[in-house]
Amino acid sequence: MPEIRTLANAIRALSMDAVQAANSGHPGMPMGMADAATVLWTEFLKHDPADPAWPDRDRFVLSAGHGSMLIYSLLHLTGYERPTIDDIRRFRQLGSPCAGHPENFLLPGVEATTGPLGQGIAMAVGMAIAERHLNAAFGDELVDHRTWVIAGDGCLMEGINHEAAGLAGHLGLGRLNVLWDDNRITIDGATDLSTSEDVEARYRAYGWHTVRCDGLDADDVRRALAEAAADPRPSLIACRTIIGFGAPNKQGTAATHGAALGTDEVAAARRALGWDWPPFEIPGDIAAAWRELGGRGASAHSEWRGRLAASPHKAAFERRMAGDLAEGDEIRDRMAEMLAEPKKVATRKASEDALGVLTPLLPELVGGSADLTGSNNTRTKDQTPLTRDDYGGRYIFYGIREFGMAAAMNGMALHGGIIPYGGTFLVFSDYARPAIRLSALQRCRVVYVMTHDSIGLGEDGPTHQPIEHLTSLRLIPNLEVWRPCDRVETAEAWEAALQRRDGPTLLALSRQNLPQLRDYAGRDGLRGAYRLKAAGAARRVVLLATGSEVEVAIAVRESLEGQGIGTDVVSMPCWERFDAQDAAYRADLLPADALIVSIEAGATLGWERYTGRSGLNIGLDRFGESAPAEDLFKHFGFTAEAIVPRIVVALENQGDQ
Amino acid sequence: MPEIRTLANAIRALSMDAVQAANSGHPGMPMGMADAATVLWTEFLKHDPADPAWPDRDRFVLSAGHGSMLIYSLLHLTGYERPTIDDIRRFRQLGSPCAGHPENFLLPGVEATTGPLGQGIAMAVGMAIAERHLNAAFGDELVDHRTWVIAGDGCLMEGINHEAAGLAGHLGLGRLNVLWDDNRITIDGATDLSTSEDVEARYRAYGWHTVRCDGLDADDVRRALAEAAADPRPSLIACRTIIGFGAPNKQGTAATHGAALGTDEVAAARRALGWDWPPFEIPGDIAAAWRELGGRGASAHSEWRGRLAASPHKAAFERRMAGDLAEGDEIRDRMAEMLAEPKKVATRKASEDALGVLTPLLPELVGGSADLTGSNNTRTKDQTPLTRDDYGGRYIFYGIREFGMAAAMNGMALHGGIIPYGGTFLVFSDYARPAIRLSALQRCRVVYVMTHDSIGLGEDGPTHQPIEHLTSLRLIPNLEVWRPCDRVETAEAWEAALQRRDGPTLLALSRQNLPQLRDYAGRDGLRGAYRLKAAGAARRVVLLATGSEVEVAIAVRESLEGQGIGTDVVSMPCWERFDAQDAAYRADLLPADALIVSIEAGATLGWERYTGRSGLNIGLDRFGESAPAEDLFKHFGFTAEAIVPRIVVALENQGDQ
Repeated sequence: MPEIRTLANAIRALSMDAVQAANSGHPGMPMGMADAATVLWTEFLKHDPADPAWPDRDRFVLSAGHGSMLIYSLLHLTGYERPTIDDIRRFRQLGSPCAGHPENFLLPGVEATTGPLGQGIAMAVGMAIAERHLNAAFGDELVDHRTWVIAGDGCLMEGINHEAAGLAGHLGLGRLNVLWDDNRITIDGATDLSTSEDVEARYRAYGWHTVRCDGLDADDVRRALAEAAADPRPSLIACRTIIGFGAPNKQGTAATHGAALGTDEVAAARRALGWDWPPFEIPGDIAAAWRELGGRGASAHSEWRGRLAASPHKAAFERRMAGDLAEGDEIRDRMAEMLAEPKKVATRKASEDALGVLTPLLPELVGGSADLTGSNNTRTKDQTPLTRDDYGGRYIFYGIREFGMAAAMNGMALHGGIIPYGGTFLVFSDYARPAIRLSALQRCRVVYVMTHDSIGLGEDGPTHQPIEHLTSLRLIPNLEVWRPCDRVETAEAWEAALQRRDGPTLLALSRQNLPQLRDYAGRDGLRGAYRLKAAGAARRVVLLATGSEVEVAIAVRESLEGQGIGTDVVSMPCWERFDAQDAAYRADLLPADALIVSIEAGATLGWERYTGRSGLNIGLDRFGESAPAEDLFKHFGFTAEAIVPRIVVALENQGDQ
Repeated sequence: MPEIRTLANAIRALSMDAVQAANSGHPGMPMGMADAATVLWTEFLKHDPADPAWPDRDRFVLSAGHGSMLIYSLLHLTGYERPTIDDIRRFRQLGSPCAGHPENFLLPGVEATTGPLGQGIAMAVGMAIAERHLNAAFGDELVDHRTWVIAGDGCLMEGINHEAAGLAGHLGLGRLNVLWDDNRITIDGATDLSTSEDVEARYRAYGWHTVRCDGLDADDVRRALAEAAADPRPSLIACRTIIGFGAPNKQGTAATHGAALGTDEVAAARRALGWDWPPFEIPGDIAAAWRELGGRGASAHSEWRGRLAASPHKAAFERRMAGDLAEGDEIRDRMAEMLAEPKKVATRKASEDALGVLTPLLPELVGGSADLTGSNNTRTKDQTPLTRDDYGGRYIFYGIREFGMAAAMNGMALHGGIIPYGGTFLVFSDYARPAIRLSALQRCRVVYVMTHDSIGLGEDGPTHQPIEHLTSLRLIPNLEVWRPCDRVETAEAWEAALQRRDGPTLLALSRQNLPQLRDYAGRDGLRGAYRLKAAGAARRVVLLATGSEVEVAIAVRESLEGQGIGTDVVSMPCWERFDAQDAAYRADLLPADALIVSIEAGATLGWERYTGRSGLNIGLDRFGESAPAEDLFKHFGFTAEAIVPRIVVALENQGDQ
């Protein structure tokens, strides 16, 4: 068997060659961490390249995602079907699964999309939570694996690592092990340009175990990884490395971080490493050794399959990991039962009611809140806390860590077996936004429960009142944003969220009570928009509204109809769903010959998609104020008294043209 | 002189009474921290209630902004003109300066808007940087003050505190002192529901000094504050307190955090505290003592005025602190000179060129980048680093801390004397977004230099390619978003950013080279949108484009004109500026009888404001891909070849109607 250094040099060669061919990419990290990664992947990581979806595999997250050639090399060398060497030759080219940063939806074996720094480690925390939770449900026979991370200085400077590490320490996630590529270099130069902290002391303050090693000495890496694996706490393994190791004239400098080395330096590195083969060629003995080491996990996998086949939990476990919902009809029946008697409640309370139906039927639902449990109404009576002493609990007190919560939820969803949901105030979606984006990009079934969705939250004032948030979230591709107007639409929003297998859903819910406006039978809300009230008189106006403003729209309609102005009310809880309806449906709701008016207590920009240049948009294009909610709705003109005259004027102006 | 406890009880009484009157608010924090805050404000804080704008005052930031009644009480009791007792009676009511959370634009003495947790401490870091920087420029005679913060558990759990504390430790900001209200309670209950960390050990790992005291024992608080003030490092003062101290049945529980105590408990607290006066009444001797203590700083202020009057720096210092720009005409002349010879460069490079003109003329410009200096082109040749050994430097290596950078810039702008700008990739505006929102809400002159503004960044792929970001930023009230198309518009964007005194500006800049499309003479870009090319043939089409797509629009126009289809090209670098133009100007650019087409390599939602329901929006409503930029522009249809046929079809459909 070749030495670790020789095996590692295959990673170095592939990395510098692929970056050179693309003339774009990051050779420094893979070259610096090649030895440590080789020890990890050949001696510690439990995986089976023949089945990247093996549920009990260890999870590996390359949090320093710019070093993507590291994972592409590892997957290729250990025998995964993809990437092929041709995929690697086409690194960073259109259509190659070897994208600039690792994308979970392009390559099996890539557990998470990384690149936005710090989020990999935070998703790994979620994976480690999922592992312990499923272990509590299914036992050591079926669930008994580790989560490994490679993180860089950037990951450890980003604020989210604080939230993630604090949560991991609190929950005692001993199966989480983070290798820190401690190369003392960032893009701008030496790390001491911008940081002076003692990272290990900081992690110990979170309750982590820390250990240090020479990341370029395989024996020392082995010692450190063994110590980490044995320790019951989460571990930070500080690996002192040299960025770009092997490139004789550039190693140890920021020049190797994010650019091709250049053909001369690549040639010099070949000489320095004793790597005599042409670009993209791995000699037979080294390739064979890698394959053999990649095959180490096959027997463990086979034994695991045996245990699964014999397990009484087999069907339940497979259903959970496949992400299939149990009890589809029963959910609908119980929702109908729950909604039979109309109630005037806040939609956050309506969401709690829906969860009261769902959580007993769906054990995969694991909830939580960023320290706003009583405000977000996210905990149901049958959920006990998930703690270090009881990982079987189904409610997580995330603490004041919105971003960490969102990333952890992504990690749980990526791990499989869990449908996570979590709450905060809608305005603090901003704190979690980079992870919400990654939910959407990674196609994760995650449900965001965002309450206090407008100036309707009242006295807390402009820092807590969402204005731009609804539409700024609607802008994120593959995210469905729901703003239900009552209990029925809230139940539909939850159904829609669970039905989605390929993306996240965000529920924007009211603090204040809202009347129940229709019955559940037609389930019209699932189309994203529908005619809630049809015009009585000849239709001249269509009112579009969401959430708490649907009630306002109904009052406006009554007044207009009283003046003989026929008016539809269209409730529009989910733009993305409406946009996906066929043209005839959309045209029927938005007729060309009517004045289309939007009413939403938020920014107007974006509503013109439906109201056009001649429509009227009633909204709020400024920050809010601190006052009781009712005063604010009056102050900012969200009342029939204020809106009706504006519509009448708009109709007159339209008539003039 | 009454005892500290007696003085502090005035804060407790005002806080519980105001919250009770509003039946909304957070009494727990002010009641717990009243003693510590009294010691701080009467014995340590340098301020003069008669002049809240005294430039050399200590800055006090209530990072735990929900405890707003603490600062309202302190301002009132120490003798600030506002809030009056009537303002406090109207706590959280429409029009009261005593908003739910402290707002810097409502009350002099409120140095920063707080409430979004963690940002107060991070802004304080910026204030402390500003103090040292101005000290380096103007000396101890004029600039010699401290920055004090009160933070809660939430502030210390949020990720941003990690970034802020790391930066403060690195820069050795010894005049920054943070009092941590260590009351072991969060909204959901005991802190041990969600955290187990050793906060003080963590802060020591950042290079901070830490000290602990009994926050309810004035002598012990005094000892700790004195120790903190004497230590050359930034200090964390852990104050063990009891939330809601004084409310006998509720203190020490989450019940006091965010709700009125109830009339019975308020009455019980009066008895427990020995506070026999009616709501909102402060007995004469206690009021007088507070006033007297509030007046302590007047003599220091007077001496400082003397030093200012005698200083050779007087005019420069006053200009800087007033935020007046020097050298207005010279800037324009030099810009014109710089732009005289057209060049094809990336707008990030154009921004560097503009900064090359500006930084020598405007010493108040302090730049930086979140570890992307060479990519953001934010450093000019005459900027040396601002370090712990040379606070006079004008370039800050912020490290990989986008959110911390943005909040620190807010702090610098709030401090005064500095116009901060800082860079990262546009996609990572998401990381900084909560602070960008606070720039806008607080009306701070901060300039965000966000480069790599589209799929034009190429190979790094979807995690690094902005899609929804431009319009999601345009949605934030009071933020001006610029996406210039060339060197001239980039210079105009910088001019506009500096002219704004009451809000932030964000520049979205290209990685790739763009041709210079016009000359600088008319400075048309300052109107936000203007006709760059007028139709030759009879106008049937108006193309709206920004940034790199203006060049594409020009090619589209040439092709359409070649087919006899008259086509305007409108360059639209700043929507907010265009929306502020008069109706005639806007109507002239967007005629009702033309097909309006938007071209922007980002989400289309929002463009309908200008293109209407019958217009055509060319954009990207999905995530990007990893490939060279030119391939992506072709792949996603941002070429004349792909766009022209779509316009021709749209014209035909329009003709059919």
